Amino acid sequence: MIAVLKKGVSDQQIENLSNWFKDKGLNVHISKGEYCTIIGLIGDTSKIDVDLLAGLEIIESVKRISEPFKSASRQFHPDDTVINIGKIKLGGGNFQIIAGPCSVESSAQITDIAEKVKAAGAGLLRGGAFKPRTSPYDFQGLGAQGIEFLLEAKKRTGLPIVTEIMNANHLDLFEEIDVIQVGARNMQNFDLLKELGKTNKPILLKRGMANTIKELLMSAEYIMAGGNENIILCERGIRTFETYTRNTLDLSAIPLLRELTHLPIVIDPSHATGISRMVKPMAMAAAAAGADGLMIEVHNDPIHALCDGAQSLTPEQFADLAAKVNKILEVVKS
Amino acid sequence: MIAVLKKGVSDQQIENLSNWFKDKGLNVHISKGEYCTIIGLIGDTSKIDVDLLAGLEIIESVKRISEPFKSASRQFHPDDTVINIGKIKLGGGNFQIIAGPCSVESSAQITDIAEKVKAAGAGLLRGGAFKPRTSPYDFQGLGAQGIEFLLEAKKRTGLPIVTEIMNANHLDLFEEIDVIQVGARNMQNFDLLKELGKTNKPILLKRGMANTIKELLMSAEYIMAGGNENIILCERGIRTFETYTRNTLDLSAIPLLRELTHLPIVIDPSHATGISRMVKPMAMAAAAAGADGLMIEVHNDPIHALCDGAQSLTPEQFADLAAKVNKILEVVKS
Amino acid sequence: MIAVLKKGVSDQQIENLSNWFKDKGLNVHISKGEYCTIIGLIGDTSKIDVDLLAGLEIIESVKRISEPFKSASRQFHPDDTVINIGKIKLGGGNFQIIAGPCSVESSAQITDIAEKVKAAGAGLLRGGAFKPRTSPYDFQGLGAQGIEFLLEAKKRTGLPIVTEIMNANHLDLFEEIDVIQVGARNMQNFDLLKELGKTNKPILLKRGMANTIKELLMSAEYIMAGGNENIILCERGIRTFETYTRNTLDLSAIPLLRELTHLPIVIDPSHATGISRMVKPMAMAAAAAGADGLMIEVHNDPIHALCDGAQSLTPEQFADLAAKVNKILEVVKS
Amino acid sequence: MIAVLKKGVSDQQIENLSNWFKDKGLNVHISKGEYCTIIGLIGDTSKIDVDLLAGLEIIESVKRISEPFKSASRQFHPDDTVINIGKIKLGGGNFQIIAGPCSVESSAQITDIAEKVKAAGAGLLRGGAFKPRTSPYDFQGLGAQGIEFLLEAKKRTGLPIVTEIMNANHLDLFEEIDVIQVGARNMQNFDLLKELGKTNKPILLKRGMANTIKELLMSAEYIMAGGNENIILCERGIRTFETYTRNTLDLSAIPLLRELTHLPIVIDPSHATGISRMVKPMAMAAAAAGADGLMIEVHNDPIHALCDGAQSLTPEQFADLAAKVNKILEVVKS
Repeated sequence: MIAVLKKGVSDQQIENLSNWFKDKGLNVHISKGEYCTIIGLIGDTSKIDVDLLAGLEIIESVKRISEPFKSASRQFHPDDTVINIGKIKLGGGNFQIIAGPCSVESSAQITDIAEKVKAAGAGLLRGGAFKPRTSPYDFQGLGAQGIEFLLEAKKRTGLPIVTEIMNANHLDLFEEIDVIQVGARNMQNFDLLKELGKTNKPILLKRGMANTIKELLMSAEYIMAGGNENIILCERGIRTFETYTRNTLDLSAIPLLRELTHLPIVIDPSHATGISRMVKPMAMAAAAAGADGLMIEVHNDPIHALCDGAQSLTPEQFADLAAKVNKILEVVKS
Repeated sequence: MIAVLKKGVSDQQIENLSNWFKDKGLNVHISKGEYCTIIGLIGDTSKIDVDLLAGLEIIESVKRISEPFKSASRQFHPDDTVINIGKIKLGGGNFQIIAGPCSVESSAQITDIAEKVKAAGAGLLRGGAFKPRTSPYDFQGLGAQGIEFLLEAKKRTGLPIVTEIMNANHLDLFEEIDVIQVGARNMQNFDLLKELGKTNKPILLKRGMANTIKELLMSAEYIMAGGNENIILCERGIRTFETYTRNTLDLSAIPLLRELTHLPIVIDPSHATGISRMVKPMAMAAAAAGADGLMIEVHNDPIHALCDGAQSLTPEQFADLAAKVNKILEVVKS
Repeated sequence: MIAVLKKGVSDQQIENLSNWFKDKGLNVHISKGEYCTIIGLIGDTSKIDVDLLAGLEIIESVKRISEPFKSASRQFHPDDTVINIGKIKLGGGNFQIIAGPCSVESSAQITDIAEKVKAAGAGLLRGGAFKPRTSPYDFQGLGAQGIEFLLEAKKRTGLPIVTEIMNANHLDLFEEIDVIQVGARNMQNFDLLKELGKTNKPILLKRGMANTIKELLMSAEYIMAGGNENIILCERGIRTFETYTRNTLDLSAIPLLRELTHLPIVIDPSHATGISRMVKPMAMAAAAAGADGLMIEVHNDPIHALCDGAQSLTPEQFADLAAKVNKILEVVKS
Repeated sequence: MIAVLKKGVSDQQIENLSNWFKDKGLNVHISKGEYCTIIGLIGDTSKIDVDLLAGLEIIESVKRISEPFKSASRQFHPDDTVINIGKIKLGGGNFQIIAGPCSVESSAQITDIAEKVKAAGAGLLRGGAFKPRTSPYDFQGLGAQGIEFLLEAKKRTGLPIVTEIMNANHLDLFEEIDVIQVGARNMQNFDLLKELGKTNKPILLKRGMANTIKELLMSAEYIMAGGNENIILCERGIRTFETYTRNTLDLSAIPLLRELTHLPIVIDPSHATGISRMVKPMAMAAAAAGADGLMIEVHNDPIHALCDGAQSLTPEQFADLAAKVNKILEVVKS
C-alpha cells in the first residue's frame, strides 16, 4: 500500500503516522520528494481500512498495490478451484450448463423441464422457489412447496438443483439443495453471506447490477472468511444507460476474473438481456470468452410462464444452444 | 396500461388476449390501426406483471399509464405524510437534521457528539451499531453494545435515535430505537422489508446506489403493503462513471419524489460525496431544492473515526452548516 | 406513434391537437377511456419531434411504435448491406479483421506491421494519423504525413486503409483512404456526419462511449440522409462504473443491431478493454456473438508504441487470435 | 507521478526506465521494497503519457500526484477568474443568469423574450441558431439567420449573447456574439476546441453527458493551451440509469470544480432535468451550492416552442425563479 502525503506535512506528523503503521505490524518505507512524501507499507495491509486512511487530513491519496481479497485471490491460490456437486464437477476445465425455469410452478412443470434440459445436455437444474420481485404485488414464488417440487425433479432426473435463498432463516429448507444461489440484489446482504459462510454448500454468487468486480470478490471473501470456499461467481448483466436490453452483459468479466481469482465463473445471458432471441448468441460468446458455465432460462411454455417469459427459451431452442456451445468449447480448448 | 400488438396478429389471438384481461377484472379497449393494434386496459392494473405481458410473442410493447405503486403514490394520497417521532415531526413542512457519527465507538463518544449536535440544532441522533462494510476485514460495528450506547445518549439528551438494521432477527434489539434505517445495500432485501412492514416503527429507507426512483418507491411499497406507512425516503448518491466523488448526489430526486409521493424526503450528502469539504454546500443545495431533512455525519474527532472519517464534520463545522441551512429554509418558505 | 393525454383534457383540446396532427399528414385514431385518452398516429411519424410533443401540457406521455431511423432500419431494407472496399467485401457473411497500430509512427513501422497482419489474415490496415487525445499535451498524431505513410503501406501490401477523420476540412487528404473512421468522441459531431454524407466513401462509425444503440443508428441516419449508405457500425465499449477495464464492451449490441439494422457490425475489443491480455478472449466472443468484423490494435513493438501500448498485441499474438477467430466463425456458420 | 513496478523486475530494467525518465528532464526517486519497487518522478510530468507508461510490461500501475491540467488548475492560479463580457462580469463573486429560448424562431420572438428576461434580471441572452439534434429529421436551427435575429435582440436590449457553435468554419458568423457555447456533444471535438483557443472570445464549455470532471478540465485546457483563457464551465446533467429525468444534474461538480479550478461554473438545470417544473428548485439548489451563474430556458410560448418545450419556463415563471435565486445568493454570501 502506498500513501501519498500532502505538501507541507511536518516531520513530526510523518513520524506519528509512521509509528501508527508500525504498531499495526507493517514495515514502513518513507521517500521524501521535492513536491510530496510517499509512504510505502509492506506486510499484511488487507486489514487496513483505506477509507479511514484517505480521510486523514495529511493524506493526499492512498493506493493499494495488492488487492484486499485474499482467499479469493489467484495470487495465493494459483490453481483453478473445482466445485464438486454430487457426481458433477464445475470449474477447472469442467463446463456445466445450469438450465430451468425462472419460477417453479408445479411438480409436473419442473419435472418435465428437468427431463428435457437433461436430455439436451444440462448438468444442473435451476428453478426459483423464493423470488425477489421489484413489486410486492408480483408473484413471489411457491416458497417451501417450490423447494419440494425441485427435489422431486431431482429424484426423477438425478440433476443437482440450484435455487435462490433470500433469507438465512430458510436454510433448513435448503438441506437437500445442491447449490444455493445468492441473487444480485442480495450480493451485499452481508449477514446472509456470513450465514452461508458457516455452511459447506456450494454457493452461486451473482454480481449485483451495479457492483464492481472487486466488490463481487469481496462478497465472495465474506463467505470464504467463514470457512466455505465453494463459491461459483456469476455475471448477469450490469446497469447502464442503454435501454433496449434490460442490462448490459459484461463478458469482459470472464478474462478479468480468470486473472484475479481461482473461483469458477458462470454467465447468465437470460437475465442480462431479458430477450430470448439474444440468449443463444450471448451464450456462445460467453463460452468463447472462457466461461466455466452458463445459466439459461428454459420453459416448456414460455408464453405462459409466471414471470420472465420474455427471456425464456423452449427446450428445443435450448437443445440448439447447447449443441452450438459445445462446438465453441471445442475451439476454446483446441 | 397500454399494450401494443405486433403486426400480423390474428383476430383470434386478440380475442384470446382480450378475454384473459377481462378474466382479471379489467376493461379492455381495442383500437385497430393500419400498422398495429393497441389494447388499452382500464381498472386496477397494478397487479398485472408487465414483464410477463411484454414476454408474450404477440406483444410489441407494454406501457403503464399509472405507476405501479399505490400506497406511496401522491395520486391517491394528496397530502404530505408527517412522521411522528416522539415529540418530533418530520415532513409536511417539518424539517429535521439527523446528525451523528458513522459508527458508535463508545458511550462517551456518542453522548458527547449527541450533546454537541443537539446544541447546534439537530433533531435526531444517528450512529451505526451494525455496519455494512464491503470487506469482511473492516470494522463491522459494535452491534448490540452500540445500540445500548445509543440509548444511553438518548436518555441523556432526549434526542430520538436513527440506526441501521441489517438482519430482521435483530428486531428485538431495536425496540427502543425511534427510526430504523434500511441501508442502500438492503433496499431490495425484500424479506427484510416485509418484516419491517409488520412493525409500526418509522423506517428511513435509503435509495440503493444503482436503483431508480421507481424502484425506491416500490421498496417503500413493500413496507407499506405490510401495514407500516411511516416511511422516510433518503437519497444518498447514485453510482456513475465520475470518480472524484464517491457517488453522484441526485438532488433532482427531491422535486421528482415530491410529485410522485406524499412521503418525506431526506438527503445524505456525507455518504454521497465522501468528502467533508463538500457536505456543507450540498446540504444547503438540498435544503434549497426542497428536502424535508438532512442526514449529516458528525464526529468529535474525524481524524480518528473508525470509519468514514473522510466525510465527517466536526461539531463546529456542523453548527455552521445548520445555521446556513436554516437561512436557506427561510428563503424556501418565503 | 401513441400519445397518452392527461386526465381532464377537454374535447376542444383533443380536437385542436388532432387537427395539428392531420395537418402534418397523419391519420389519427382517438380512443377515449375512463382514466385517459389515447391518440394513435399512423403515417410517417419519423419527422415528428417526440420531445416537442411530450412537452405539451396536455400530454402524459408519448411512445413511438416504429423507430425514428428509416434508412438504417432493417424493417425497410431486410437484406444485409455488404460494403465493397476495393476487392474486399464486409458484411452479409463477409467477415473481416481490421488490424494495425493505434498511431502511425513512421513509414517503416506501418509497412512492417501491414505486412505482418496481412500474413496473419487481416483484410484491412488501420493506423491513426489524426489522434483524439484527452490531453492537449499528449501526442496528437503525425497528421498529413501519417496519411502518406499509410498510403505507402497500402501500395506495398494492397491492404485497404481505415483511418480516423477529426475535421471535415481534412477530407481532401482522405481521397485515397478506403474507409473513413468517425471516432467515439465525434459520433454526435453532426456537422462532420453531414459532410461525410456527401461523400461516397465507406464510413466506420464508432459508438460514443455513453451513447445508446438508438443514438448510434440516428448518427448513421445523419450520414445516410445525405446519400451515403456505406456505413459500418462499430461497438468499442461504453462507460460504466466498473474501473478494472477502461470501458465495458457491450457485445449484446451485436444481436440487437442485427435485428434493428441491415448495416454491418464490427467490434473493437482493444479500446474497450484497454488490456492486451483481454483482447483475444473478447475477439473470440465477438465472433461467436455474430459480429461482421473485428478491429484489433497490433504493434510491432508494443512497449514503445507512442500511445495505447497497453492494449496492443504483437503480430504473433494477432496471428494466434486470427486463427482462433476463424475456427469460431466456422462454428457460427455451421 | 508514481510508478509501481511489478515483482521480479531486474535492476537493469529499473536502470533503463530510470534513464528514460531522466532524459525527459525528470528527477527520479527509487524506493525498493520487499514486494515491489516504487519510482517517484519529480518535475513537469504533465507531458508524460500515462497510458503509454502503464502499458509497459514491467509496470504494475501509474498514479499522478498532480493533475494533468495546468492552465485550468487552481494550484497555479489561486484567484478566481472573472470573465468580462461587455459591461458585465461573470465569476469571482459576480453571479449571472443566462436566459432565453432553446431555439431562435424569429426576430420578434427572440426580442420579445430578451426584453422579458432582462426585466426579470437576466444578465445575458441565450438562443440556439445552430442546433445539435439526435435526429437528422428534427429542426436544425435557423443558422446564420438565427445569429442575425440574436444580434437584433442584443441591439434592442443591450444583453450580451450566448449561442452555440457546431463548426469552426462558422466562426466568422460569431464575430459579434459575446460568448460562444460549445455543446455537450462537442466537448471532446478537439479540433473545434483548438480553433476556439485561437480566438479571444469567452467560451461557455458544456460538460459532455458522460464525461468526468477531469475530462471537462482537460477540454478547457485544450482551449487555454491555444491562448484563450476566457472559459466558463457548464454542468448540464450526466447520463445515468435513472429514466424519470432526462439526465442527472451533478451539483457536486460545483464545490469540486471550485477546489480544482479558478474558472467560473454555470449550471443548466433546464437541459439536465428536461422537465420545466423541476427547473426552479434545481436552480435554487445550484445557487445554494455556490454556482457562479445559471443557464435557464425561457420561452414566451413554451407549448409551441420548436424544440425542448418540455423544459422551458414562461417569462413569469422565470421572474419568480430569479427572485428566489437572488434571495438564496444573499444567504450564500452572508
